[in-house]
Amino acid sequence: MTATITAFELSPDRGQGLARDMRVRWAFEEVGQPYDVRLVSFGEMKQPVHLALHPFGQIPTYEEDGLVLFESGAIVLHIAQRHAGLLPAQANARARAISWMFAALNTVEPPIVERSMAWVLERDEAWYGQRLPAVEGRVRKRLGELSSCLGDADWLDGAFSAGDLMMVSVLLRSKGSGLLDEYPNLCAYVARGEARPAYKRAFAAQLAVFTAGASVGRK
Amino acid sequence: MTATITAFELSPDRGQGLARDMRVRWAFEEVGQPYDVRLVSFGEMKQPVHLALHPFGQIPTYEEDGLVLFESGAIVLHIAQRHAGLLPAQANARARAISWMFAALNTVEPPIVERSMAWVLERDEAWYGQRLPAVEGRVRKRLGELSSCLGDADWLDGAFSAGDLMMVSVLLRSKGSGLLDEYPNLCAYVARGEARPAYKRAFAAQLAVFTAGASVGRK
Repeated sequence: MTATITAFELSPDRGQGLARDMRVRWAFEEVGQPYDVRLVSFGEMKQPVHLALHPFGQIPTYEEDGLVLFESGAIVLHIAQRHAGLLPAQANARARAISWMFAALNTVEPPIVERSMAWVLERDEAWYGQRLPAVEGRVRKRLGELSSCLGDADWLDGAFSAGDLMMVSVLLRSKGSGLLDEYPNLCAYVARGEARPAYKRAFAAQLAVFTAGASVGRK
Repeated sequence: MTATITAFELSPDRGQGLARDMRVRWAFEEVGQPYDVRLVSFGEMKQPVHLALHPFGQIPTYEEDGLVLFESGAIVLHIAQRHAGLLPAQANARARAISWMFAALNTVEPPIVERSMAWVLERDEAWYGQRLPAVEGRVRKRLGELSSCLGDADWLDGAFSAGDLMMVSVLLRSKGSGLLDEYPNLCAYVARGEARPAYKRAFAAQLAVFTAGASVGRK
């Protein structure tokens, strides 16, 4: 049975691939599994029908044969555990790849989101400029540590894994701030992720949703 | 072979159990496995020896028989997958419990940490009071959604799981702000977690480290 995920009817990033369904689409493409997509509007996401699938009213969700999951990290891990292609076969290497998934989501992503939310919500406030150096300092701290750890390796721990999928996805969210450009090896790492055929297929699929939605005037 | 984790030599929370080694200690206690602890100072955490274990210079780490892991989420999941007591046996229920772990760490914890960091870093700034309502609004949004989802259930999805362990641990970090008090069912949920014998043993162990460290004058 093909799994169904949810995605924005009209993504607020205008198809840049930063919405969290992109991570799940990429995972499906890496393991070569088909998936269906059900689009939801912002209004629908806050209704009981969607909240029954996702307690926090977000996308993506995952439905398959009686199983409902939410949180992109959990969904990607579920896909990676069931299909070959995203986790090493050896147990210790597998556990390390999962460490990198959690590091992406709980250590690297929060300061990146804080930086982008400051821009979205507070850029017209008097304190925005005063706070920014500290906010960006927290992003730089994590990017610098990650850059040191990666060095000149292609991926974080041997072959490409779900840990890299999640870390590249998180780093993409910091591209707009210009901060990523300060770390050439991280830029190259992200570019390697974006160059993967599975990434490209997933990106095209989510962009097609935005383009179709925008063309019929849903804004 | 007994696993070794790292913890603060002198925890900045003064033994309140909010440091992330607490989550791992609690998991070990729930599954009835012994563990060793190696204490590290703030200076040691930034040295190459520790950075080789933890790329972001934090605690806890996990070492066992050639395997090194970091990120409390990944370590708790590793323990839960290897020993009975923290994940349901049935595959779908297991995947849902893991969803709750990710929800705790990637959806609920970030706004709670943002609130506490604003207090730590910005409480003397002119803008602190102006920003606070929005910052607290983001915490309330997640607590409200979680409260609605939990309802009058004891735990998030059937029996106590690693998802509850992580969610209770995250909610404990919001206790100091007073925001948790606005959600009586979440307070009761956290209290149920704290009442578990495994939680109490883990709490006592981390408190003993702080008490011993403080008594010899390491500050």
